[in-house]
Parts: sequence; C-alpha cells; structure tokens
Amino acid sequence: MAKKLRIGLIGYGFMGRAHSNAYRKVSNFFDLEYQPVLKAICARNEANAIAFAKKWGYESVETDWRRLLERDDIDAIDICTPNNSHAEIAIAAAKAGKMILCEKPLSMDGPEGVDMVKAVEKAKVPNMVWYNYRRVPAVTMAKQLIEEGRLGQIFHYRAKFLQDWTISPELPQGGAGLWRLDAKAAGSGVTGDLLAHCIDTAIWLNGGFASVTAMTETFIKQRKHTLSGKVEKVGIDDACAFLARFKNGSLATFESTRYARGHKALYTFEINGEHASIAWDLHDLHRLQYFDHKDEGKLRGWRSIHVTDHGGEHPYMDKWWVPGLQIGYEHSFIHQVADFLAGLASGKPAGPTFRDALETQFVCDAVLKSAKTGAWEKIKSAAK
Amino acid sequence: MAKKLRIGLIGYGFMGRAHSNAYRKVSNFFDLEYQPVLKAICARNEANAIAFAKKWGYESVETDWRRLLERDDIDAIDICTPNNSHAEIAIAAAKAGKMILCEKPLSMDGPEGVDMVKAVEKAKVPNMVWYNYRRVPAVTMAKQLIEEGRLGQIFHYRAKFLQDWTISPELPQGGAGLWRLDAKAAGSGVTGDLLAHCIDTAIWLNGGFASVTAMTETFIKQRKHTLSGKVEKVGIDDACAFLARFKNGSLATFESTRYARGHKALYTFEINGEHASIAWDLHDLHRLQYFDHKDEGKLRGWRSIHVTDHGGEHPYMDKWWVPGLQIGYEHSFIHQVADFLAGLASGKPAGPTFRDALETQFVCDAVLKSAKTGAWEKIKSAAK
Amino acid sequence: MAKKLRIGLIGYGFMGRAHSNAYRKVSNFFDLEYQPVLKAICARNEANAIAFAKKWGYESVETDWRRLLERDDIDAIDICTPNNSHAEIAIAAAKAGKMILCEKPLSMDGPEGVDMVKAVEKAKVPNMVWYNYRRVPAVTMAKQLIEEGRLGQIFHYRAKFLQDWTISPELPQGGAGLWRLDAKAAGSGVTGDLLAHCIDTAIWLNGGFASVTAMTETFIKQRKHTLSGKVEKVGIDDACAFLARFKNGSLATFESTRYARGHKALYTFEINGEHASIAWDLHDLHRLQYFDHKDEGKLRGWRSIHVTDHGGEHPYMDKWWVPGLQIGYEHSFIHQVADFLAGLASGKPAGPTFRDALETQFVCDAVLKSAKTGAWEKIKSAAK
Amino acid sequence: MAKKLRIGLIGYGFMGRAHSNAYRKVSNFFDLEYQPVLKAICARNEANAIAFAKKWGYESVETDWRRLLERDDIDAIDICTPNNSHAEIAIAAAKAGKMILCEKPLSMDGPEGVDMVKAVEKAKVPNMVWYNYRRVPAVTMAKQLIEEGRLGQIFHYRAKFLQDWTISPELPQGGAGLWRLDAKAAGSGVTGDLLAHCIDTAIWLNGGFASVTAMTETFIKQRKHTLSGKVEKVGIDDACAFLARFKNGSLATFESTRYARGHKALYTFEINGEHASIAWDLHDLHRLQYFDHKDEGKLRGWRSIHVTDHGGEHPYMDKWWVPGLQIGYEHSFIHQVADFLAGLASGKPAGPTFRDALETQFVCDAVLKSAKTGAWEKIKSAAK
Repeated sequence: MAKKLRIGLIGYGFMGRAHSNAYRKVSNFFDLEYQPVLKAICARNEANAIAFAKKWGYESVETDWRRLLERDDIDAIDICTPNNSHAEIAIAAAKAGKMILCEKPLSMDGPEGVDMVKAVEKAKVPNMVWYNYRRVPAVTMAKQLIEEGRLGQIFHYRAKFLQDWTISPELPQGGAGLWRLDAKAAGSGVTGDLLAHCIDTAIWLNGGFASVTAMTETFIKQRKHTLSGKVEKVGIDDACAFLARFKNGSLATFESTRYARGHKALYTFEINGEHASIAWDLHDLHRLQYFDHKDEGKLRGWRSIHVTDHGGEHPYMDKWWVPGLQIGYEHSFIHQVADFLAGLASGKPAGPTFRDALETQFVCDAVLKSAKTGAWEKIKSAAK
Repeated sequence: MAKKLRIGLIGYGFMGRAHSNAYRKVSNFFDLEYQPVLKAICARNEANAIAFAKKWGYESVETDWRRLLERDDIDAIDICTPNNSHAEIAIAAAKAGKMILCEKPLSMDGPEGVDMVKAVEKAKVPNMVWYNYRRVPAVTMAKQLIEEGRLGQIFHYRAKFLQDWTISPELPQGGAGLWRLDAKAAGSGVTGDLLAHCIDTAIWLNGGFASVTAMTETFIKQRKHTLSGKVEKVGIDDACAFLARFKNGSLATFESTRYARGHKALYTFEINGEHASIAWDLHDLHRLQYFDHKDEGKLRGWRSIHVTDHGGEHPYMDKWWVPGLQIGYEHSFIHQVADFLAGLASGKPAGPTFRDALETQFVCDAVLKSAKTGAWEKIKSAAK
Repeated sequence: MAKKLRIGLIGYGFMGRAHSNAYRKVSNFFDLEYQPVLKAICARNEANAIAFAKKWGYESVETDWRRLLERDDIDAIDICTPNNSHAEIAIAAAKAGKMILCEKPLSMDGPEGVDMVKAVEKAKVPNMVWYNYRRVPAVTMAKQLIEEGRLGQIFHYRAKFLQDWTISPELPQGGAGLWRLDAKAAGSGVTGDLLAHCIDTAIWLNGGFASVTAMTETFIKQRKHTLSGKVEKVGIDDACAFLARFKNGSLATFESTRYARGHKALYTFEINGEHASIAWDLHDLHRLQYFDHKDEGKLRGWRSIHVTDHGGEHPYMDKWWVPGLQIGYEHSFIHQVADFLAGLASGKPAGPTFRDALETQFVCDAVLKSAKTGAWEKIKSAAK
Repeated sequence: MAKKLRIGLIGYGFMGRAHSNAYRKVSNFFDLEYQPVLKAICARNEANAIAFAKKWGYESVETDWRRLLERDDIDAIDICTPNNSHAEIAIAAAKAGKMILCEKPLSMDGPEGVDMVKAVEKAKVPNMVWYNYRRVPAVTMAKQLIEEGRLGQIFHYRAKFLQDWTISPELPQGGAGLWRLDAKAAGSGVTGDLLAHCIDTAIWLNGGFASVTAMTETFIKQRKHTLSGKVEKVGIDDACAFLARFKNGSLATFESTRYARGHKALYTFEINGEHASIAWDLHDLHRLQYFDHKDEGKLRGWRSIHVTDHGGEHPYMDKWWVPGLQIGYEHSFIHQVADFLAGLASGKPAGPTFRDALETQFVCDAVLKSAKTGAWEKIKSAAK
C-alpha cells in the first residue's frame, strides 16, 4: 500500500501548474513507495483558488498560508509565491514541521537564504528547491558522463540563458504575471531568475565557483508599474554577464538577458574536458551533443544523441514511451517529484536541498556585487 | 457543470497508456464542456488489468470486452488491441450504441474497414481513429499554412518513417509487445504500422491520392514465433517504398522501414509549393521548417520555427507553458481528446473519422497490391 | 621535371570555368608527375573565346573543334559543350588519338554512349567523365567507410537532387545558359542533368542497379524557345522520381526536381547498413553524417563530421588549409584532375571512365522508359 | 590593358600559400583594373624559397627582405612572417615607398602598431591588414544588414573562437609551424592569434569598444622549446575570455581557447538587435543565421540563409558558381585582394588599414592588461 504525501501548494501561477501536473502524473509513470495527494491549494484570492482546485483536483482551499501550516493533514508545503515571500513562509513551515519544496531561487539573497537553511536544518524537515533542469534526461546524463570520468580534466564551462520578451518599453513592471520585473518582489532580474538556473546546473556538474567578475545592464530605465500605476525606475537587471573561475581550475563564461531577439528560453551549456565535450540546449531539450576525442580520428564528430531510449540507458526514459518519442519541459518536474519521493523512502534526500541552493545564492550575490565594484569577487562557501 | 464522458478502454499496452494519460490530463489544461471519466479498463489478464486500473485510476475492470459493451455506464469505447480485433469490437460497439475511439490503423484492410464505417454510420455514433500526429502543433500549423494558401500549387510531397529496431535476426515475431511483427495480428508490417501515419497526414494536408507504385521487402525471412515457439516464415513487410500521384497533380515519394540504422522513429514530411515549402520531423516535433519565396531575395532561408508560442498563434500552445518550453509526443493525444470532446459539444466531429481513416486503408491496399503486381494501382475512393 | 599535359578545352560556359580553374590550381596544391598546360580554348564565337583565353591564360584560340583535334600540340580534349555534341566530338577525338575528359552526362542516351565507349577503347586513349561529386572529400570518405566494411549489409539507399530555379513560367527554354531546358540539346531534363549525378555516386558506393520503376512530370507544358522565339512544347522532364532495387539486395528511392521551393542544389544521399549509416548533403558538402551502432548504447548518435582534417585522415584534405577550414564546390574538380593526372603516371586510370559512365546512361534510359511504360525495367549491363 | 601590381611576398608558410592562391585566382574571377603579378618570394631558406616559387609561379627569389625592398620591380610587399618581425619590415617597406599588405595581427602590441601606422601614413603608401573574415560573404552580408538598419539598437554582441589543438602536453613550443606557441615570436597566445579576428570583426560590425575586463589562463605551464631543445616556461595565454562594453551601449562577451575539445576553428559571432538578430559560424561559413522580429508572429524563426546566390544579392557570389554551390575559406583572401585592387583603382582604400587594425591592438592590450589587474580597462582610441 502506497504511503501518501499530502501536499499543500501556495500560489497557483505558472509554477503552481507545473508542480500540480507533476504531482498528478508521477504515480502513473513511476512505481514509488510514496504517492502525492493534492490536499490543499492556498492563495489570497479565494475564487481563483477554488477554480484552480477544481481544475487540478485539490481537495481543499485556503486563503492564508499561516492557516495552511497549522493543518495537520498536510505533510509538505510547496512554495510557488514570488521570491520575496519564500523566506517567511519557509521558516514558518519548518517551525511547523512541514517538509518544504520551494520554487527557485531559494531567497532574495544569501543572508536570507542562510536563515532558511538554518530553519530547515534545525527542524530536520526534508527540503528541496525546484531547480528542475537537473532532471531533464539529457542533463542528468551529462552528470553521469562527468562522474564516469569521460571528460577528464575540465578546462571550460559556458552557459547562457537568453530571452527576448521584455524588449518593448510598453511592457509594465510588477503585478500579476509580471512580478519578475519588479525588483521588490523578485530581488533581481535575470540574475536570480535565469542565471540562478545556470549556476545551479554548473555547481552540480562542475563543482564550486571560486570567483567572478560581472557586468549588468538595465536597458529600459523606467517602466510603468502595474501596482502603483506610475512610471517608476526599473530596479532589475535586464542583462547580466560574468566571467568565473571554478575551484577545479576551469574557466567559465555566463550570460543572461531578456533582450536577445530570437530566443525564447535558450538555456544552453557546454563543457570542454580533456577527453570529451558536452553541450545542451533547452530549445531541443531531448538532445545531448557529445564529442569524444577517443573516437577514431577520421570519424570524430559531435554526436547528436536523441535521449529517448529505454532499458535504463537514458535517465528516466524507461518510464515513458518508445525510443524516438520525446518528452518535454514539464517532465523535468515529474522527475524531480519522483526523486523527492524516492529520497523520502530511501532516507537519501534528493537535491538540490536548501543548503545546495544557498550556494547558488552566494554566487548571485557575488555577481551582483561585482557588477557594482567592477572587481573580481570571491564566492562564500555554503558548506556546513 | 461539466458533462462526463465515461470511457471504457480495451487493451493496456503502449497505446493504452498514451490514451489514459490523455484522458487524465486534458481537463487540467483545456476548458471543455465534456470531461473524460476513466470508468473501466478491459483486458483478458485480470491481474494486469487490476494493476493498470490502480496505476491510472480506472474505476473498474472487465476481462471480456463483450461484457464492457453491455454496461450502460460506459459512453465511449477506446480500442487499443492488436489490429486483427478492431473490426469485430468496433462493429459490436457500434451496435451497442457506444462512441468509438479506435487505434490506428482502422482495420486489417479496406474491405474490413468498409464494414466498420457502415456500422458506425448506421449506428450514428461518434467515431474517431487515433492518427495522433495531426495534433502535433507544428503539423497542425502546417495544415493552417496550406489552407491559408501560402504554398500555392503543390508540386511535391515526400514522407518517410524510419526505424531500426528489427535488424537483429534474434528478435522473435509475435507475442506480447511484438504482435506488430506477426502478420496475422498486424495485417502488414511497416505499411499499416508506419506508412499509415504518413498517408493519413498526407491526405489531410495534400488531399486524395490518385495512384501508386510500390515495392516491399522482408529482409529477414524467418523468425522464431513467440506463441508457437517455432521458427516461422515472416509474413510482414520490413520495408516499403512507393511513388504516388495525388489528385491535385503533385508527385510524391513515401518510404518506411525498420532497417534504417540510426533512426528511432524518424517520421518526416516535406511539401514543396509554388510559393513556399514546409518540412517537419518527429524527432524534433516542436519545430516546423518553413521557406517562403516571398521573403526578400537575399534574406530567403529556411526558418526553424520553435512552435511554442502563446496567445493563439501556435496551435494548442496557449494551453501549455511559456514560449520556448517544448511539449512532447504524448501531447498529441491530449490534443486529440480535446478536439474529440469539443466536437461532441459543437456537433462538428473531430477527424479523422472512421470514414477518413478508410481512405488510408485503401491507399495501403493499393500499395501492397502494387508491390505484388509491379504496376501502378489506382486508389479506391472512400467518399460516401 | 614535370611532364606537361596540354589541354584543349571546348566550350567556355559554367563547366569551362570550373575545369579551367581546376587545371590552373592543381599544381599549386598537389605534387604530381604531370602538370596541365592551358594550350587552347575552342568556341564558335571567336571574340568570346579570346576573352576567355585572356582571363584564364589559354595560349591559343580555335573556333572549330575539328581544327583543334588536328593540332599535335594538344594531348587532351576537354568537352564542355551541350550533351548533344558529346558523342560526335568524343568519337572524333578518340580517332585523333587524344585523351578525353568529357562533361557529364556521357551522352544523350545509352546507344550513343556505347559508340563512345567503343571509340575510346579502340583508340586506347585515357578517358574520364566529370562526375565530380565522387571527389568531394566527405563523399570519398563515405566510399572508404563502405569499403572498410563498416556498414555491413546495405539495406537502403536514398538520394535526391532538388532545385527550384524553373518554377516561373516566364523562363524560356533553350539558348545560351538555358540549353539544359531544351530536350534537343540536353536529351532529358532532371534525369540526365541531376539524377545522373545521384546514379553515378550510387553505383560507385552501392554497386550496380538491378531494376527501376519511375515517374516523370513536366509541370509547365509550354515555354518560349529562345532560339525560335516561339512558344513551344517543353520536351524535358521537370521532375523525376524512381524506386530501385540494387544487385546487392538493397532498396532505393531517387528523386529530382527543379520545382522544390527552397532548395538551390540540394543533392543528398543516405545509406543504411546493418551496423552503420551515412548521410551527406551538397549544401554543407564539407560535413559527413555518420551513425555507428557499435558505439556504446547510451552514447549513440549521428556524428556531424567536419571533413577538414590533415594528416591523411580525411581524403584530399592534407593538400589544403588547417583543420576546421572548409573547401568548396570547385575543389571537387581539382581533386578529379589530380586523380586523372596521377592515373596517367601510375597507369591505373581514374574513374569514372566512359565505360563507368555508360552504366549511368543505362539507368537513365531505364528510368525514362519506365516513366512511359509504368512498369519495372531491368538495367542493361555496361560491363565489357 | 590591365595595370600590373608586382608582389613581393615575405614568408611561405600557411599564410604565404593562402595569399599566393588569392593573387593567382583573383583575375580569373574578378574584372579589375589591376592584376597581381607574382614577382618575388623572399625567405631565409633559399631551397625552400625556390621550391615555393616554382610551385606558385613566382618569377624570382630573395633570401633577405631588405634586398627585396630595394628592388624597383616590386610594387607591394606582403608580410607573412611571425608577428615579431612585422614592425621592422613594414616600417622599412614604407620608407622604401612600397605598398604593404601585412598579416594579422598588425603588431606585437599597441605602441609598436602606432609606429607602423605613423610610417605608412607618413609615406602615404596603400596599406592593409589581412583580417580576411570580413570578406566571407555571409559576414559581409551581416555588415550590410546592420548598415541598412535592420537590427535597430544593438543590445548584445558575443563572439568566440574555439580550437583544441594544443591540449597535449607533448606538443612543443616554438619552431617551424609552432611559432604561435612561442610568446617571443607571437606576442601573445589566443588573444593576438584568434581574439584579434573576433575583435576586428566586432569593431567593423558594432563600432568601437569602450572597456573590457578579462581573464587569461595557461593550462600547461611548461613545454619543450623546439629551438632551445629545453623545457621552458610557456609565455602565451592558452585561453582568454573577456566582458566588454561597446561605445553604442551594447554588452559583449568574447572567448577564445585552444582547449575546447571538439572544435577545430569554431569562430562564431551573434548580434542581438532591437528588431533582428544575426549569427554566423566559421565551421559553416557559407551560411548566415537571421531572425527578424518583423516577420509575421507565428512564422518567426531563425532563417538559415545559404549565402550562395547570384545576381548581386549575396556579396561576392556573382563571381563564383551557381546558387547552392558553396565556396570555402580561401575565397575570403581572394575577395580581400579584389577589394584592395579595386581600392587602388578608385582611390578609396580597402580596410582594414593599418590604422583600423591598430584599434584591435589597443583592445588586445587592454584585455591582456585587465587579465593582470583584474579591473575594467578603458580602450585607447586609434582615431587620428
């Protein structure tokens, strides 16, 4: 008999849907000891919460997250609210003894993240941050290839996350669906929203950062704020690029922007090792590019691997369809839920934990600081 | 209050999963008058049926499809059994007044398909065949572009569906998961399994076929049969290629094989018109290639369109995530269910109906006949 | 001291330029016993011939090819005239004891080709036909891989040559630069012009054809003829597709058209073998696509090989630049001249000889015949 | 009657061949008032010089470049020697009144470059630096598109030049063919060799740099020196990455390395503007990627433009073959010679002149300085 994991979700936006879908589907495709139950959805607007509950099958509705935390029929809290409320909710949830699944980025900045880590570790509650791209099968396979030593010494890491949706000066900042443009709600612009993904993957694949030097830019200085109705100074970074040195001696470049015409969500990374190289691209997320110098000379070339095979060869893909049939973006969340549930059963928590995600916050802090100082900044350690 | 459409599914293999997933998800993403309810799963092996029911949330289990047809709490029958049982079940279901959703191909051959069409049309029950690729957003958009007249006169159509999973002579024929290699269960090899998809899409996009000339081959002549345990003659076509002329004057080439090393499920088509051309590829199903001769001369090039935009611009994509985030294979089934349900509400049935699918059977019949006669064969009309 | 090979070129069109460039460059990049000398250019229009001679460094000019054949300071005749004069010139040149390099296709049809083969073999003069694509390094490497047995048994061959330059009905037929549209000068349309290339490569890579079934179409039935000034019936095939069986048991599809919007000169082929597959594309001629099933399972993928390496690994490329720097179309002619010259020195003639090219004529004949009869046609043997 | 431009070439390595090929071919394809004449090749090793002269058709040989400068049958000096001799030769050549074509980079550093610029400007001799990538047709077209205003305000520029040929620690530094690894001969590593190309193109396409911050790395600290026979400290940068701000307000990232496994000579750039974006890649140099936001919404996509059209539409391509047939690396040099010769005739000198190339030196200087200081460095102006 499956054990139930009763979920209380806070927030019903884009991520609320992605997570709900993951909870609903995971048991159809994975055989796990635990099964999620959609117990409650919490949002300030009751009508919207009810509509969402109906659409997704949540059993109940709350309009105050503090009330949700008090319920004893909830095992885990999933935080899908804007960044500026993560810390308060997570710390309270930890105190209430709830497991916590928190949308990324963990926090508004490093110090806030430190408090969150302390809270969950003190309460000893399972905790995880939704850096979902680790669970795209091609990315998971990249991790395996590196761990198998196929790349050898790493010389270079490069990542970028390019979008083009904020080029129009008519676009307002803040408000529903646009809080990511409001520095007060989001903390930063592309750094916390997009580069945080790149940084999390990089730490996972390439180990810790040593130091960075960065530049940021806000191309459109003023935008109408949806909440105030007034034209206000834009506080977020529209673009950010930085150079980095990793602890393993490799050099890296990172870049993100919402002003790269032609790119919708082009998250790419490439890793160059002594023996082999790997590249991946979110726009074709089911493919991994792989070059192996050990291949016979005249036949060396980048392999375009369609990561859709069965039989345990391609991570997670034995759960899905038949070779050649691709999965999509949403499946990365399903995989993350599956790993979280498996971690509960095995006692080996699935990453990234809050502490893992804190490391990403420290890199973001250093990046934003360097963009002001113009100097190389060292990265604080998140290790215990 | 949503109306319920109570589903009785027969068969729990690969397609049983794909359809169940579609029924479970459609209401989370589409706002429709009808909602599917997973009422019963039917399969001869009771233990497997029970396990499947549990995994997918079916309310009940049957082991005899005739018993399922008698139940009055079932509105629609979904046939996911091997091809050689489609006709018998569908005709009985029609007599029982059930709506029918039947896996492709419709039937073992044209004459059998004629009986099925007569049955559903006599019974006036909604009916549909699961040629799911019509509902891949990029393919649906191809249809729109053609209907908008952007291509002008069509000169060429070419399609292929290449796989490589049966090259080993050790692979047996028949039995669980392998009935597609058994001519008695499948009717034909790649012609009915893979080319049927290519033909259905072609009819939809380019109109009716006029005539064909074909060749088929069975590379491995004998294989062990799983059911008999003996080495038996292989009755299916391992590969099939044909030339075609369409009623609109265009020329076409079609090819399918399970001996194309390096291709898992490479269904591609390309259409060349007077003004523009379109190409698509199942291995990257979220992209459409488009060339428009009306573009300014020096800037003409094939556009790689990432079919993931919101706002009604890209078919079905307003239901999913944000631009740049791709969906996968399984979504084509969800879209087909959505259209079927919308068709029930509007009274305009979603295609392909049984009669639409009969046209594909007639083309398959002519292809297989031509492979024997070596001559061009005309295509029978499926029109009423 | 290098031996001189004194060239007499007939015709100064597109191919006259391509060949002249090859003669001029070969000795700069290849160390060979023989060096071409641009002795004479022959063309009916004297002013044009003089201008061409000046531009390319030809030492003298002739206006009558018969006069050229009489000269004893000419070793080799290069025939770059329209197809309908190949036979007469080549047979006379053979009688005059000249070596012959003839543009493709060899002849207007098989019987004419037979006479040409007889003439050169009786005269025992070195002879070659300019099927230049064999000498694109990626194509040459494909040949090597097949000969090394890497593909194993061949199951499938598919080739196409797609263009889009004759879609406009305003384009006239015949006259300077347009003789390829005039059946009297060209013999056929895409079959002799484009498919002949595909057939030559296929014979080279995959062995002889056994039989074919074909269709042809002339989309625009009448065009103004430049020479007569009148609208005349178009005699050429605008498009041609055929199915084929090779002697080695493999199945093939071939297609060519000048009505494929978006393709300038898209000659592609793909070969699927038991163990590996190969694909190539003239639009990116410096790349070879290669899939090897012997690669480790999870890492299998199509390799995009940039065929630009030194050190003897990639055919011909040790003569050129450094790895990563591509060569282009014209280099295939330089390589062919180099091989012709090396063949003179070694006594092992470089192919394709007239007899090799005759085999392509026989396939073309069968294709054009099948397009009329609608039946499968066997291929005549060109073997001695 | 064509005017002669009598060339004296110094050095016969890789670039000596590339330039000689350009001089030999330009008049076959371009109609120009001036024609190059291969008058003399100069190199210290007389036997090698004689062999080179014979292979390429140089009329005479010199072993002392000072002697070459004294000859009055030489109009232009082409400097293809290692970087550390550019200044001395160029300044002497200017004093001797010779036109100068100098391989890139102009000089060992900015101050040396200043002296060279002064010398040629004082002597009023035509001068040019071989930044050949400006004349790849796709790159030239990028320039046209920007000048036509199609991109609008530029937000981002990113370029990289990745190679992998120095990963082995066994590779020695210095000596024939390896002087690029010897800091004394080359001045720097990838910065002067590869990034100099990226910087030249960037200045041409995007205007002047404002400031940079950089990092460099030498992965292998010691290598055997071919000249001394001893293991010596490696003085060059193996890798270099930098962030930049341009005067037009755009942000940029640049990176180069010889440790990027899988890349032979992957020079790529991408430019993101308000309305459109452009991308290019040396590994497929005949293609330009173009995205235009003004395209109709649902049909927006990156266009892969095969830059091979005639009729003046694609830069330089009316001189070559027919649409679809690509040219290669070497043609960029032919185009540069053609432009240089046209510039002599018109009196409008073709760029980049020494002064243009000095700007690139200043950027390189700032990059290398920043790699030491860790700070942002401003770029000196090369303007008169």
